Amino acid sequence: MFVTVLLLLVTLCAQGGNGEERDEAQRPGHVSVVIVGGTGDLAKKYLWQGFFELYVNQVKGAHTFSFYGGGLTPTDKGTPVLFEILKAVSCSKDVSKERCAVLKDQFLRLSQYRQLKTLEDYQNLAKNIEQELQQEGMTEAGRLFYLSVPAFAYADIADNINSSCRPTSGAWLRVVLEKPFGHDFRSAQVLASQLGNSLKDEEMYRIDHYLGKQVVSKILPFREENKKFLDPIWNKHHIERVEILLKETLDVKGRIPFYDQYGVVRDVLQNHLTEVMTLLTMRLPLNLSSSEEILQNKLQIFSSLLPVGKNQAVVGQYQTYQTEVQQELNKTKDHVSLTPTFAAVLAYIDDAQYEDVPILLISGKMLDERVGYARILFKNDIFCLQNHNSVHCKPKQIVFHFGHGRLQYPAILVSKNLFKPVSKDSEWKEVTEHGDVDILGLPISDYYVQTPTKQREAYSELISHILAGRKNSFISTENLLASWGLWTPLLSSLASSFPRIYPGGADNGNLLDIHVKGREISYNSEVVIINNDQMGGTSANGFQVMQGKFRSAEMMSAWSEELVNRLAADIQEAAEAAVHKDGVFHLALSGGSSPLALYYRLALHHFSFPWRKTHVWMVDERCVPMTELESNFHSLHDHLLQHVRIPYYNIHPMPVQLNQRLCVEEDGGALMYEKDVSKLVNGSSFHFVLLGVGYDSHTASLFPGNKVDEHGESLVALTESPIKPHQRMTLTFSAINRAHKVALLVMGKGKHELITQLSRVKDNPDKWPVTGVKPTNGKLVWYIDYDALIG
Amino acid sequence: MFVTVLLLLVTLCAQGGNGEERDEAQRPGHVSVVIVGGTGDLAKKYLWQGFFELYVNQVKGAHTFSFYGGGLTPTDKGTPVLFEILKAVSCSKDVSKERCAVLKDQFLRLSQYRQLKTLEDYQNLAKNIEQELQQEGMTEAGRLFYLSVPAFAYADIADNINSSCRPTSGAWLRVVLEKPFGHDFRSAQVLASQLGNSLKDEEMYRIDHYLGKQVVSKILPFREENKKFLDPIWNKHHIERVEILLKETLDVKGRIPFYDQYGVVRDVLQNHLTEVMTLLTMRLPLNLSSSEEILQNKLQIFSSLLPVGKNQAVVGQYQTYQTEVQQELNKTKDHVSLTPTFAAVLAYIDDAQYEDVPILLISGKMLDERVGYARILFKNDIFCLQNHNSVHCKPKQIVFHFGHGRLQYPAILVSKNLFKPVSKDSEWKEVTEHGDVDILGLPISDYYVQTPTKQREAYSELISHILAGRKNSFISTENLLASWGLWTPLLSSLASSFPRIYPGGADNGNLLDIHVKGREISYNSEVVIINNDQMGGTSANGFQVMQGKFRSAEMMSAWSEELVNRLAADIQEAAEAAVHKDGVFHLALSGGSSPLALYYRLALHHFSFPWRKTHVWMVDERCVPMTELESNFHSLHDHLLQHVRIPYYNIHPMPVQLNQRLCVEEDGGALMYEKDVSKLVNGSSFHFVLLGVGYDSHTASLFPGNKVDEHGESLVALTESPIKPHQRMTLTFSAINRAHKVALLVMGKGKHELITQLSRVKDNPDKWPVTGVKPTNGKLVWYIDYDALIG
Repeated sequence: MFVTVLLLLVTLCAQGGNGEERDEAQRPGHVSVVIVGGTGDLAKKYLWQGFFELYVNQVKGAHTFSFYGGGLTPTDKGTPVLFEILKAVSCSKDVSKERCAVLKDQFLRLSQYRQLKTLEDYQNLAKNIEQELQQEGMTEAGRLFYLSVPAFAYADIADNINSSCRPTSGAWLRVVLEKPFGHDFRSAQVLASQLGNSLKDEEMYRIDHYLGKQVVSKILPFREENKKFLDPIWNKHHIERVEILLKETLDVKGRIPFYDQYGVVRDVLQNHLTEVMTLLTMRLPLNLSSSEEILQNKLQIFSSLLPVGKNQAVVGQYQTYQTEVQQELNKTKDHVSLTPTFAAVLAYIDDAQYEDVPILLISGKMLDERVGYARILFKNDIFCLQNHNSVHCKPKQIVFHFGHGRLQYPAILVSKNLFKPVSKDSEWKEVTEHGDVDILGLPISDYYVQTPTKQREAYSELISHILAGRKNSFISTENLLASWGLWTPLLSSLASSFPRIYPGGADNGNLLDIHVKGREISYNSEVVIINNDQMGGTSANGFQVMQGKFRSAEMMSAWSEELVNRLAADIQEAAEAAVHKDGVFHLALSGGSSPLALYYRLALHHFSFPWRKTHVWMVDERCVPMTELESNFHSLHDHLLQHVRIPYYNIHPMPVQLNQRLCVEEDGGALMYEKDVSKLVNGSSFHFVLLGVGYDSHTASLFPGNKVDEHGESLVALTESPIKPHQRMTLTFSAINRAHKVALLVMGKGKHELITQLSRVKDNPDKWPVTGVKPTNGKLVWYIDYDALIG
Repeated sequence: MFVTVLLLLVTLCAQGGNGEERDEAQRPGHVSVVIVGGTGDLAKKYLWQGFFELYVNQVKGAHTFSFYGGGLTPTDKGTPVLFEILKAVSCSKDVSKERCAVLKDQFLRLSQYRQLKTLEDYQNLAKNIEQELQQEGMTEAGRLFYLSVPAFAYADIADNINSSCRPTSGAWLRVVLEKPFGHDFRSAQVLASQLGNSLKDEEMYRIDHYLGKQVVSKILPFREENKKFLDPIWNKHHIERVEILLKETLDVKGRIPFYDQYGVVRDVLQNHLTEVMTLLTMRLPLNLSSSEEILQNKLQIFSSLLPVGKNQAVVGQYQTYQTEVQQELNKTKDHVSLTPTFAAVLAYIDDAQYEDVPILLISGKMLDERVGYARILFKNDIFCLQNHNSVHCKPKQIVFHFGHGRLQYPAILVSKNLFKPVSKDSEWKEVTEHGDVDILGLPISDYYVQTPTKQREAYSELISHILAGRKNSFISTENLLASWGLWTPLLSSLASSFPRIYPGGADNGNLLDIHVKGREISYNSEVVIINNDQMGGTSANGFQVMQGKFRSAEMMSAWSEELVNRLAADIQEAAEAAVHKDGVFHLALSGGSSPLALYYRLALHHFSFPWRKTHVWMVDERCVPMTELESNFHSLHDHLLQHVRIPYYNIHPMPVQLNQRLCVEEDGGALMYEKDVSKLVNGSSFHFVLLGVGYDSHTASLFPGNKVDEHGESLVALTESPIKPHQRMTLTFSAINRAHKVALLVMGKGKHELITQLSRVKDNPDKWPVTGVKPTNGKLVWYIDYDALIG
């Protein structure tokens, strides 16, 4: 019934769809489109319509097409279903009825249903495509597979495509994927590597439909066109904060089996809102039509994003969600789901342009209105001396209004006291007449408003970008993993958080208002747990630390985050006391991964720490150049030193590299460090020494069997590690045990075994080096997290 | 007629005036008060009233008193004048009429007029005091001299006091001084050192009557009492900005001979507003009653204040001022005074707590209202998701309202969405009933309002503090000089600025509104010069740089500030180009004072500078430890490196100290630096080398007669300077001339002679070292300011 007929002229591509990009992606010729899952919901709702529009727009273009709707059901059952779907596609208003009928008829004739279940099915599809090409004597431009199927099926399908459907003779292969792309970093990586076995990175097109929204895809061009206005103000000095919101009024009833596994952070924040954030903050590419440059600059933002701690997020859940879960998942009344349906997250970008600018990402179900927007609120930089009612005394902001809300149409709004935006784009126009609506605190008449001349569906937009090979409208593997890299730790730390329960709609009142405090957020109002019994417990205390004894020294224990906070507070207290008493604070710090969270805490939360009077020394160092990632100093620099205002000469890396070589005994590096310590540190007694413990109970770089007795009175020594890099420089027990305070930080389930052993063994530094830590006149405190203590 | 009669009981001091301080200052006994200039305006208006109140409050205190009004006129003429003044003093409302009459009578009898003109007069005064003490058998507590005379008379009077009026036997001497204390750093220093010949620092009490205002003196106690609320928010993360204002409605008619010499910056900003700023931002003392600690902490703020550049201030002058000047100073119509009657200044404190918080200091005559206040506006840290009308969605601020304005009384206002302030002070009360007034954007009902239970004059307050020896209510010499240190450079750079002319009162409209842009301010509206011809010129362009040739190389010239801005912009451009091309930027920088303004500019205005990819090298170094102030690196660190986010390993100080000794040939420091350069810098060609030139035409540390030929191909060498410290390490011409770009910065009138010579001489690096700068393949640009170029 549906036979692929080729009626179209193959013309030279005079002008591409959007005219910016012209590369090998535009090779003219025949394109075979295969929607795998071609009769599913998404295909029905958006995809066929999108491809129809593509077809209509390309009627006079460089390409000819055939369309295949693939599915698991046999052809005789699938064909009529597809037919119904295809009949429903519609033309845009500017196409006449007659013309539309002709176009639809052509489109129908170019499309067919195919069963795509087995490898053989794919082989047959390939044969079919090749036969047609041959019969019609057409050059092949490429093959587009759109996988509109559950993610678990991706790997097999990709494998089939790879083994049997690859075009020959230089035509392209593009495989389009729909989210979810994993549910955390690990699973996304697994999926990416599975797909990587079959497909090259440039062949994969991961869809985030937000990138097809007209306002979202206008962000970069808007920034470019208005560069001269934005350059001076698009930075920490002028931006008060950034808000990126997607508010929904609906619940998730009927979608619980999916939703309860994901929640709002995975569903919206990790992808849509994160993408918008990167577009707003990335460095503008020199060339707006270079996908590669855009993707690179985007990635840079990810590398500058600071980790998002548990205290930088709040979660909520609408009140009826529990009942919905119990019903849809067949659970009993005492089943509790902690899946959030609302989340607000505070992100920071750690670079000179944006540091300290709060970026709020917020989304939720069952809120008071449906709206999506990004708002850049600028600092109040006008001081009005006398007459406070002038326009220029009002707030300044730019709103990227994605759609819905009070405005009801997509638009970019710039408050009139900022600048009148330029638009060189004929697809956008200025709105000059508007009703009496208020948008985010200002009457709409206080804004310059720009809107697309013609509203288009995100999917149609993206489908045209796939054909044009504009990869920057899609999520690259690197981009995907970077995003999961940001979100996964937060998701883990939120896993056991009780969401605040909210009634939904207008009744939410001020219940979900957010308080930004320092670099943390919380709900502004006191905790109100509506159904306390339903939640099965009370929310955890913020800062609960247990005190006790371990190996007859003092011990602090808590969950890791609280423990780190407590240790940071204790270090600051020691610093202040030392500065008060001695005018200086000598702090010796360890390498390894355990203290990294501590270093971030000190760097980003302890702004009154007396860094100017603090000297930082190394407890130990690996014999590698300090510019290497492996260097303890490098890691300390990255996580702490570069973030704080500490004088250069107060920083004391160990001299592992001398005379262009590493840790050679006769270069005397250890002695040199010892001399520095003796010269600057009163009595060679550090005020505070932070140590970790390895699985083998080594501390500093003092390993089992190191014969520490041989160090005698030396403060610094070269040692051998059983693990690469073998050579180390380290403070000796003589140096450590002279300190005023020593903290031993032990964290993670992996250390539980060790802690159990250490609780039993006698002091024997040769076998259990950490037992050699016994400050002569100072104080030792163990900081052991619950994971390590309790296992 | 006025005979000193002692009727008062000498009681043990049961409770001091304000109860906080109790030290040797409180030694009980007799106090002789001498107001020099005792019949002048200030004495008439405030001082005698203040001393009367002191007397009344001390009637049952530990002290007895005698009061002397001193003046230049003979006793027979001065006595009745003083009598009239003393008759006019009044009691507070809570004293009965009868009691008041008795007290006034006692006060009159304790007071007398004395001529104080010659040394002999002072000797007689001293004799008189001692006779009385002896006659009455009293212990002497101290002698208080209040100098209410023009500042030029201070030194002589202090000399007379010192040589003849010092008390013996451990009694104190306190000499109170009224501003002005100089008109710039130099004159203040001269005055301070003159006074220092006669008086010890602890004997001088410099009055700033703002410190006696009840709200001002409450700032520290308020901060202390509300520490638990303020500690988390009193920092850069929460404070949006600080505004300190003194608005006046009056003109200065009749005071022009004084005012025209001073202007609003010297009259109000340098003292009153600066003092308020320090009280708001200083670290809270551990002990609020320790004057010493308070003064120390205040001084610390001065050392953290960033220099205020010309672009951080705007000035204005009310329209009729010129006519008033012409009249009062007998000037012709073409006389132009640039003295500002309005100024707004933007200050920044460069420490972790307040960095980037804009502090606006604003004062002016002939504005729309009379009011003084300091406002701490907090950042909008609440995100309201749905219901935007709640109190907690409104602005948050604390207003220290010194007096007048709409409120009409002194008060501290805290917006209710911040916290309810604590007051442990019985002298303050909460105001709960108030009219319908708006204070700085919020209705008064949105504030918690505290006010003193009893309003007191600043002078009465301060006079009681003098007796109590509370030095923190006065300006110490160090504090005074630190303040002039801040203001003097700004005053110099503003000396030739044309103030904006404003009509005065409500007519000012938005003319004086301020735009804070980056770290600079400007008037928000376009320049409107009302009487262009009156001003005799137009305002200077912001960024005007002349280009030309010098010694056949390119030359840029401009006034110093513009020149520095241009050079900074050029360096950034070079940096971006290098990073784009090579992924790294190698920058070699010089010591000396000329580049400091440049370093500040780079540090504080070029936030998009690619520091992370920049390596900083030294052009030359003095052979001193790098922690010494003399070290070029130290200065570079202070002015640039500590302010920017540059990785530790990208910083390359010269190794002048090795093996605990300085620049010893066999330690091989020069060779070591050369190796570092060769290893990291491609072809040993720096991207940018910044050089200065000394008066003797030396550049880097290459001095006349240094025999630079001997350096051969070496990149780094040790040299001898004719000036201490003699030993230097320096890049050689070989290194400099390999660079891609070399900038030679020459600034200041002192270099004019040199520039003139250099424009004539031939290349001769032995005699004129700077003529050896001839980049082989690179480009040399001279940056010469107009002072150096034109002289």
